Amino acid sequence: MRKVEISSIGKTKETWLQEALAEYEKRLSNVLQIKWTIVSDFKKLQTPYIALDVLGECISSETLSCKLIDLFDRGGSRLRIVIGDADGLDESILAKSMWRWSLSPLTFTHQMTRLILLEQLYRSFAIASGSRYHK
Amino acid sequence: MRKVEISSIGKTKETWLQEALAEYEKRLSNVLQIKWTIVSDFKKLQTPYIALDVLGECISSETLSCKLIDLFDRGGSRLRIVIGDADGLDESILAKSMWRWSLSPLTFTHQMTRLILLEQLYRSFAIASGSRYHK
Repeated sequence: MRKVEISSIGKTKETWLQEALAEYEKRLSNVLQIKWTIVSDFKKLQTPYIALDVLGECISSETLSCKLIDLFDRGGSRLRIVIGDADGLDESILAKSMWRWSLSPLTFTHQMTRLILLEQLYRSFAIASGSRYHK
Repeated sequence: MRKVEISSIGKTKETWLQEALAEYEKRLSNVLQIKWTIVSDFKKLQTPYIALDVLGECISSETLSCKLIDLFDRGGSRLRIVIGDADGLDESILAKSMWRWSLSPLTFTHQMTRLILLEQLYRSFAIASGSRYHK
């Protein structure tokens, strides 16, 4: 079973977001174990990690699927993904990342970022398995 | 009061999504009136409209804010935005649009697209008014 650790600054307060995240975690449960961690000091983050960065690389879901499967393979089926706060991550934190990934040039709330991230993880596995979720 | 009509193919079934959309509609209620319409035949769409297209133009939230305010001004405070189905919109529908806008090179569900769109509309007005929502 592949494992992903998603590190961010705070808890999910909104009920709708908790429900949405739970829905995608449930759908992913056969292929991916998700661990949410709260970060108090990004400088103490253990490498390697993928850093979400609005100015990072924007890729399609198809390319993402290939890339993630490859990164899981090279990382012993484990990945860590870091979500910054409203101001994004410091340059020093970005510099230590294995990949600066941008979900979009648009700025999202970090709550919304979690949901988009989870949906894209689900979509990545759906693409890799050839399921009908992604057409 | 500015008005936006968002046209897509289906209703919002998920409870969490209904709650999330309601939250952003409430936040927008002082500045923007939102009308959701269901489209059975995209070819009958009235122009002008903005077409969401994964291969369209990707811009930052700051640029989007300027662009949308300008489009509202030029459109008599009205805009129509069209969301396609899982396969996106036909080329003939895209060709008639005033702007092909991409939220991201990533593919999203059309449910998620609605939520991201509404959050970005809210963010656009927050940027234009200098509110602290967007830093």
